[in-house]
Amino acid sequence: MKTLHEAIRPTIFLEPQKLRDFLEIDLTIATETFQHTGSFKFRAGYNLALNVPNDEILTASSGNFGQALAYACKLLNKKCVVVMPETSAKVKIEAVRNYGATVDLVDTKSVGRNERVAQLAAQMPNAYIASAYDDLFVIDGNSSLGDELAPKDFDVVIAPIGGGGLISGISKGLCRNGSNAELIGAEPLLGNDAAQSLKAGEIIANESEPLTIADGARTLSLGKHNWEIIKTGVSEITEVSDTKIGEAVRLYFGLANLKSEPTGAVSLGALLENTGNFKDKKVCVVVSGGNVDAEIYRQILKTQS
Amino acid sequence: MKTLHEAIRPTIFLEPQKLRDFLEIDLTIATETFQHTGSFKFRAGYNLALNVPNDEILTASSGNFGQALAYACKLLNKKCVVVMPETSAKVKIEAVRNYGATVDLVDTKSVGRNERVAQLAAQMPNAYIASAYDDLFVIDGNSSLGDELAPKDFDVVIAPIGGGGLISGISKGLCRNGSNAELIGAEPLLGNDAAQSLKAGEIIANESEPLTIADGARTLSLGKHNWEIIKTGVSEITEVSDTKIGEAVRLYFGLANLKSEPTGAVSLGALLENTGNFKDKKVCVVVSGGNVDAEIYRQILKTQS
Repeated sequence: MKTLHEAIRPTIFLEPQKLRDFLEIDLTIATETFQHTGSFKFRAGYNLALNVPNDEILTASSGNFGQALAYACKLLNKKCVVVMPETSAKVKIEAVRNYGATVDLVDTKSVGRNERVAQLAAQMPNAYIASAYDDLFVIDGNSSLGDELAPKDFDVVIAPIGGGGLISGISKGLCRNGSNAELIGAEPLLGNDAAQSLKAGEIIANESEPLTIADGARTLSLGKHNWEIIKTGVSEITEVSDTKIGEAVRLYFGLANLKSEPTGAVSLGALLENTGNFKDKKVCVVVSGGNVDAEIYRQILKTQS
Repeated sequence: MKTLHEAIRPTIFLEPQKLRDFLEIDLTIATETFQHTGSFKFRAGYNLALNVPNDEILTASSGNFGQALAYACKLLNKKCVVVMPETSAKVKIEAVRNYGATVDLVDTKSVGRNERVAQLAAQMPNAYIASAYDDLFVIDGNSSLGDELAPKDFDVVIAPIGGGGLISGISKGLCRNGSNAELIGAEPLLGNDAAQSLKAGEIIANESEPLTIADGARTLSLGKHNWEIIKTGVSEITEVSDTKIGEAVRLYFGLANLKSEPTGAVSLGALLENTGNFKDKKVCVVVSGGNVDAEIYRQILKTQS
């Protein structure tokens, strides 16, 4: 049984000259697009499946966490059930199934996802109910990325924020390695609950699921465990328009040969919102994942910047 | 002044689980898409610019070699002139110019590219005339990739063939490190001169520039220096249909999060042509570069596999 550090792939650092010249910034990309299952979520899923005593794990996810947890459970011989909306892209449902998990399709018009998880939990008394972000095992798993970033001595690290699982993990990893890097969150403007929360000093939730193109950040609010870290570990949260997110996806394609999913590009989007703030600094943008449907990607590439 | 090994970025090895499961092959990707200037050609261009005594270098290239040589000359403070057809994509012309080279646009209907190079050579008596593949400095530069592949103990390495610069370099690198890997060339079926040459035991040329989607392999024939290595160092050359090349680009996108240019995907295309031959073998496919126009990429993604 592999430890977390043995199981994950190290992040890949890129320093694309064309993009650096275009932005006139000392930029490094830390990309998790080549991590197992195509996103940083494998760090979380593996650490969770490795450390909970339960042999069964239950989660609700239409995206990267479902794939990551399914693959982690396959590697660790645990049973995994993933609740997904029946409207999920077929390719995502198949991906979770191919990793060996049971997919529970739910008609979200008649039953809420959390409600369905509660139903299943009653049927699976021995199962661990896993949140994709609000869980200490998840945060610890993601902190391994902070361990990799710390020795690079960046002045600034920018990471996407949805539920806060990634950035709270990075914060924890940076802190315990004595890093002085400033940690900035990048959040879609259409779902700016984390930015509001940081200003207000308490968790503020979106009224409904934000319809940003960054589908990995369509969360109602930060998790409580994440907030405890974010409220002191994150210096600011930049609100990024969907226009800038699309522009960032295109810049990665054209000037870095990098396929990023929209959520992965929110951190570069934050840099585009305030390029002037980052001159003369050594900046790292974290690309959280690369899993995007071909048709959505084609649409983004088509849009003129 | 950096040595070749200091100047290049090591290739990036990927082992994407989804693609491995789909193919049922022990597959590793060696991708040069994140090399400086986005393709392996930087290895060639830098080694050439570093080692020729001339302060001026002249070449004809509408593609990756032009960018690579331009950037190498910028790093080494040499003058670089790149002859390009005036019909070249603007983004490619701009890329060469942004690396500081002089672009000489030629109307290929009235003057051939080689003719134009000869005209310019007469005006630049101190210039070195660089071939993108038929040059010992080019081969030596590319051999650095063979050095990186050799220690991995692959049973089979598959690399794209156009003029033969890449595969002859890989062969040289593998040989001098005592590698036993079988080296297979992957060539577009529409321009199968190298496959014909290997069968005939002598260089056979295409009658005209082949109109394959793999624009980096639109060469008339192998170079002489390349042929001397290929005729003994390459075991076979697989002819790959443009359909399979497109399929390979889509597989990289969907199952490996990798943006490949069509030419870069020809090696995976060769594997798709004969998947059964590679079971139970440790296979490496070389992705030569990632520079592809967004509109062409969108068209490839759109095509159903």
